[in-house]
This record gives sequence, structure tokens and C-alpha cells, in this order.
Amino acid sequence: MIAALRKYEEVSRTDIARITGWSRPKVTSEVGKLIKRGILMETGEGESQGGRRPRLLKFNNVLGYIVGVDIGATSIDIALADLNAQVLARDCGLADVRDEPLVLLGDVKQRILTLLSKRGLRADQVLGVGVGVPGPVDFARGVLVAPPLMPAWEGFSIRGYFHSAFPSSFVAVDNDVNIMALGELQAGAGAGVDNFIFVKVGTGIGAGIVCNGLVHRGSSGSAGDIGHISADPNGPICRCGNPGCLEMMAAGPAIANRAVEAAQNGSSLILAQKLSANDGALRAEDVAAAAREGDRAAIEIIQNSGRLIGDVLAGLVNFFNPSMILVGGGVSNIGNQLLASIRQAVLRRSTALATRELTISYSPMSTEAGVTGAIQLALEHLFVVQDKTMKYI
Amino acid sequence: MIAALRKYEEVSRTDIARITGWSRPKVTSEVGKLIKRGILMETGEGESQGGRRPRLLKFNNVLGYIVGVDIGATSIDIALADLNAQVLARDCGLADVRDEPLVLLGDVKQRILTLLSKRGLRADQVLGVGVGVPGPVDFARGVLVAPPLMPAWEGFSIRGYFHSAFPSSFVAVDNDVNIMALGELQAGAGAGVDNFIFVKVGTGIGAGIVCNGLVHRGSSGSAGDIGHISADPNGPICRCGNPGCLEMMAAGPAIANRAVEAAQNGSSLILAQKLSANDGALRAEDVAAAAREGDRAAIEIIQNSGRLIGDVLAGLVNFFNPSMILVGGGVSNIGNQLLASIRQAVLRRSTALATRELTISYSPMSTEAGVTGAIQLALEHLFVVQDKTMKYI
Repeated sequence: MIAALRKYEEVSRTDIARITGWSRPKVTSEVGKLIKRGILMETGEGESQGGRRPRLLKFNNVLGYIVGVDIGATSIDIALADLNAQVLARDCGLADVRDEPLVLLGDVKQRILTLLSKRGLRADQVLGVGVGVPGPVDFARGVLVAPPLMPAWEGFSIRGYFHSAFPSSFVAVDNDVNIMALGELQAGAGAGVDNFIFVKVGTGIGAGIVCNGLVHRGSSGSAGDIGHISADPNGPICRCGNPGCLEMMAAGPAIANRAVEAAQNGSSLILAQKLSANDGALRAEDVAAAAREGDRAAIEIIQNSGRLIGDVLAGLVNFFNPSMILVGGGVSNIGNQLLASIRQAVLRRSTALATRELTISYSPMSTEAGVTGAIQLALEHLFVVQDKTMKYI
Repeated sequence: MIAALRKYEEVSRTDIARITGWSRPKVTSEVGKLIKRGILMETGEGESQGGRRPRLLKFNNVLGYIVGVDIGATSIDIALADLNAQVLARDCGLADVRDEPLVLLGDVKQRILTLLSKRGLRADQVLGVGVGVPGPVDFARGVLVAPPLMPAWEGFSIRGYFHSAFPSSFVAVDNDVNIMALGELQAGAGAGVDNFIFVKVGTGIGAGIVCNGLVHRGSSGSAGDIGHISADPNGPICRCGNPGCLEMMAAGPAIANRAVEAAQNGSSLILAQKLSANDGALRAEDVAAAAREGDRAAIEIIQNSGRLIGDVLAGLVNFFNPSMILVGGGVSNIGNQLLASIRQAVLRRSTALATRELTISYSPMSTEAGVTGAIQLALEHLFVVQDKTMKYI
């Protein structure tokens, strides 16, 4: 019932009877209880359908607050929202996930407390915390499992940490790409789309899968972990022990490494200039800039990455038959060359029927997708759990 | 509501009120209508919960009949069932899908009419027909789309054909692998399993996907079409125009072709003997027999096929994270060598988290899966449509 109320903004008791199928006395009694607890509030009168004007009910969005946290490999992004998912305040900063969890999470906690105190709110008014982290998550336990980027976090209870910091809160932890997919599903290009894949290309490569309108996490929470799919059976050996993994061959570091090679072996003057200007290091952004200047080697590096990603996605398109692929993450700022190469490879290598309704584009929400999804994650789980314990469903 | 009744076999009016959330008068009135239409029948009295013994209601399973048809590349399999999916009669025979649809379907229709007349039933007592076909299906329209094995069927209305033959029936047409997955989901190893993949290895290779307890058909009905995923980017060119497609390299015909090569180039005496005994042709079964006799070349051919299938499945396991893979289809009779090689490749190439809860086995229902799923397909769609038109939901 709470889920229905959140969807409709304002409803009358008659609407509730229709939605739930409950008898009129049951609606009156349940609504009365919810008003008493402060969960619902009366907001005024709706239009009459022929009789008395119905009094409208609204979810009480100042009952408490929600925090969304998107932890990236090198950044954190935080939002404070009300229970209608309206963002009230934002903060973001640099971070390094190779830090100990207590160091990084201590910083996140401090930033949240500052956001709260600026609005005169207390920590115990936070009812839900949604957290996205850049690694494989055991969703049920809320811990990272063998996270390659952040080994110090293995088994650390992120749920426990936030629950002690915000004692009234329900905490949900998920993979960063899953929350980006959830953000797009809730408030972006994914709204109303039954089957889509969100692909994040950054330091690593991962996917968030929406199947039948729900985020698909798989049987052990690792669905979408596409970074170690084989892109080339004859490729170099990845740190996972297998040859030619997609992530190793096509993500941000691979692009940067190829650019350094091109700078050093004389195939790109522009990249060589950037390399010496940057103290011997290049990032994906430098390759993007060189490509915009028309540098042949830079363009080829980006196209090669796009083709490898597209070849792997082509197989997943045949298998899953989504109607949309959204590409996000840091490397998606590299320009349209990457997207064009991904599209080309998918269209060449997938079956005609599988691509008949397929669109492939950059994520329009971009960096907002993660934090929006983190808020949504907290809200969904808050109400599922509260619905159960309160026996309203 | 009908779906709920079918699930519970026998229910009381109180149960119906609980399941639907309807008020007592509404239950009484709706049940009354369904009894009048012959859809429900009263079956006796249940155990008292303290008051009057409740009268039990049961779905009327002789209201009409369901036909399930599984059309394979070289065979047809037909079952007549009641509305509780109990099979009453079976028939199967050889067929060639390269025939014109009117020829093959004419044979199917005749066989169904014979099954019916043997039990004294009329064609208009068939309320639902579920049909599986070995090619990509536009599920909404019930036609094959660019079917490689059966070009003459392109655009032919299979739904229309069966609907005119059985005028009271609702007809649903799906890909043969989807109905096999549905069969396992309904009555086999897939019962209660949220996420699994059914892989059919025969003349072609295809998969049926169960996501969150439902068959996933994708946005244009082509989900699971894994035969043209790249198994080797440097492999030979497939008839689809791309190099190294899985089906071309690992399905039944590839196994047979490699066996002929081994027979002709002297690497297998046993296969050479079988080749001359078989008038210059070998089938997957001959390779299986040679492998059982310990023939090195035959074992390697099977292992190679398993490894290619396993390498592709490894990527899909990373992406989809199922808890079960079932392998069926004609080539699954080739012996445990194939399954062992598939397992080995998946475990080597997938991430540890993705395989933590994964089992890989041959489909225990085997050839029964298709026809069981076809019956189930007809039942599901029969009641969805009837529920809507009757405004019972």
C-alpha cells in the first residue's frame, strides 16, 4: 500500500480501496493508523465525483530523510533526499577506495552529518541509506566479495557501519553499476523500459541489468560482471588468470597504456607532447583531447576499445535481447567515437531480430545516475521492510 | 484468480477471499458466476476450522482440452492434456521442417484429430494449443522471423492455422528452447529456481532463459539466441556472415563433419569403419559410440565442442549469474564427456562469485521438456486472456 501511495503522490480513500481491493472499513482503519503514526497526512480536498469532495492523502515526506552514497574508485557523491526522493542537498569529493574502509567511510559519514546539520537535522532522522560501491557485492549481507580494486574492504560490513552512524536507518548496499541502472530506471532514460543494460566504462567495465522492469542481481549478486568476459581468446593474460578479458583490454587504463605506447613509439606527436606535459602519464581524457584534434593514433585507440566492448555486447544482445543499452562511467566522456564503434560492432555481430528494437546511447543522467539510484535503493528497501514489519501490504 | 485456483488444486471460498483480498460477498458472487459457466466445480467438504465444514472448489478440468506440439528439426511430439496439465494421450513422429508449413502442419493436425477421436472428443473442445518451433519467433504475432532451418515458414501464421483447425482454441507459438525451459520450470529441475538457462544442443544451439521465475523472451522475442555468439573471432565464416559462430563450430553438424574428417584423414579407425558402414555419412550418435569405445579422435571432437560451448556460457554466466544450467537437445545424448568439458570451461573462465551457486547438468526431463512446456504455454496464455476478457483478475 505504501508503495502505491508513493507512486500516486495524492490519493483519496476511494483510490486506496480500488488499488488495494480492501473493503471501505478496512481502508478507514488502516489509513487512520498510518495518520496516527505520522506516515500519511491529509492534504486538502480533491475534485468531487458527484458526492462529497474526497479528502486527499499524501505520504508524509518530512517523516524522515534518505541518504544516497555513490562511492567510485576515485570519488564520492552524496545526496540527502526526502521520502519522495526529492534531493535537498548534495556533496561530492575525491576519494581513494584503496584506503581502509574506516578512513573512507569516516569521511563519507562526516560529509553526511554536515549536510544534515546545515538543515538543522539529526542523524536519527535518517531512515534509509543507499550505498553503491565499485566492486562485487553480496547483496543480502551488504559486504564486498573479493573486490579487486579494494581488497581491504573484503567482508567489511558497510551496512553495519552506516547503521551505527544512523541508528534509525535501514541500509542497502549494492554494486555501483546496479545503482546507476536503478537511477536510470527510476528517473532517467530507463523509465518504463522493461529490458535494458547499463554499461559502465571507467577504471573497470561492468553492467547493470534491468529485466522485466527490475534490477537483475542474479543468484549470488554478481550479475552484470562483464569485465572478465573474454574479448580475445588469444589476448594477454589478465590478473584473473584468463586471457583477453574485456576490462583489461578496453577500459580506461588500457586506453591510457596504449596512448603511452603511441606517444613513445612515435606514432602520435600530439600524445607525445601531452605525455611530456603530464610528467610521463596519460589519462583517457588526454586521448579524448588528442582525438578531438584529429590525431589518428588516438582515434584508433578509442575505436579499438569501442570495437572490443561492442563485440562482447553483441553476444549479450543475442542472449538477452534488450531494447536499450546505456553507456556511462568516466570513459563515456571520451567523445562519440567510442559510442559509434560500440554501435557498429553490435550491429555487425548481433542477429537482425535482436537489434530490431535496440538503441545504444550514452547515459543521459551520466554522473547523476549513481546517486539517484542509491536514494531509490534505500527507499525501495525501506518500504519493503517497513511494510513487512508493520504488516501493511 | 483462476491462476491461483489452478495452483492450489482445491480451495475453499475463505481461501479465495484470502488470496484475492476480496470481500466475502464479492467472492460468493464471482464463484457463483464461475460455477455457472462451468469453470469451477464443487468437489466436497474440507476440514472444519471450527465452524461449518467449508465446501471445496476445484477447477473443472473437463471443461476442455489442451494440445502441446513440439516441432523439432526432424521430429514432432504431440500431447493432449486436460486443463490441469495432466497428459491424456501422446503421439510422436518424424518430420522435416524444410517441408512447406501446410504439409508439416497438416500432418500435425491429423495426428491431433486422431488423438481426439480415439477419446471421443471433438476439435472444438480444444481450448488451447501451445506450439514450439525450431527458429526465432515473433512471440506477439506467432510467426517465425527469418528462420534459418525453415525459410518456407517466414511470416506463415502458425497461430492462424491452428486457430482455424481448433476454432475454440487460443494458440500460443514460441521458440522450441523457450518451451523446454518452461517445461523444466513448471514440472522439472527448474521448479522453484528463479534464474536458470536451458541450453539446447542439436542441429543448432539455442538457450531458454528463466529470469526471476519467468521465461525471458526479450524485447523482440529473440532472447536466448546464442547460436551466433562468437566462439572464435578467427574461426571460419558462418552463413550469417560473421566468423566463428558457436553453432557452426560446436553443434551436431560440426561434430559430424569433424568426425568425417577424422575418418578420412586416418586419425580414427573406428570412425572410418562407421563411415563406410553408414554410406559415407556420420551423425553425432556415431561419434558418441566411438567415444564409448575409447576412440581418442571421437573423444577430442566431443571435448572440443564442449569447450567451445562452455567458453560462450562462461561469459553468459558472468553476465546473468544463474544458479543452474540445463543442457538438453539431441546432442546431449552424446555422453558425459560433453557435459564435463562444458563444466570445466565455465568454471575456468567465469568469476568465482558467479559460479558459487551454479550447477550444470543434463536436462532430466530431456525430450519431455518441450511438450510439457508447450502445454504450459497454452495454459498460461489461455487463462491470461480469459482473465482479461472476463474481467477476473
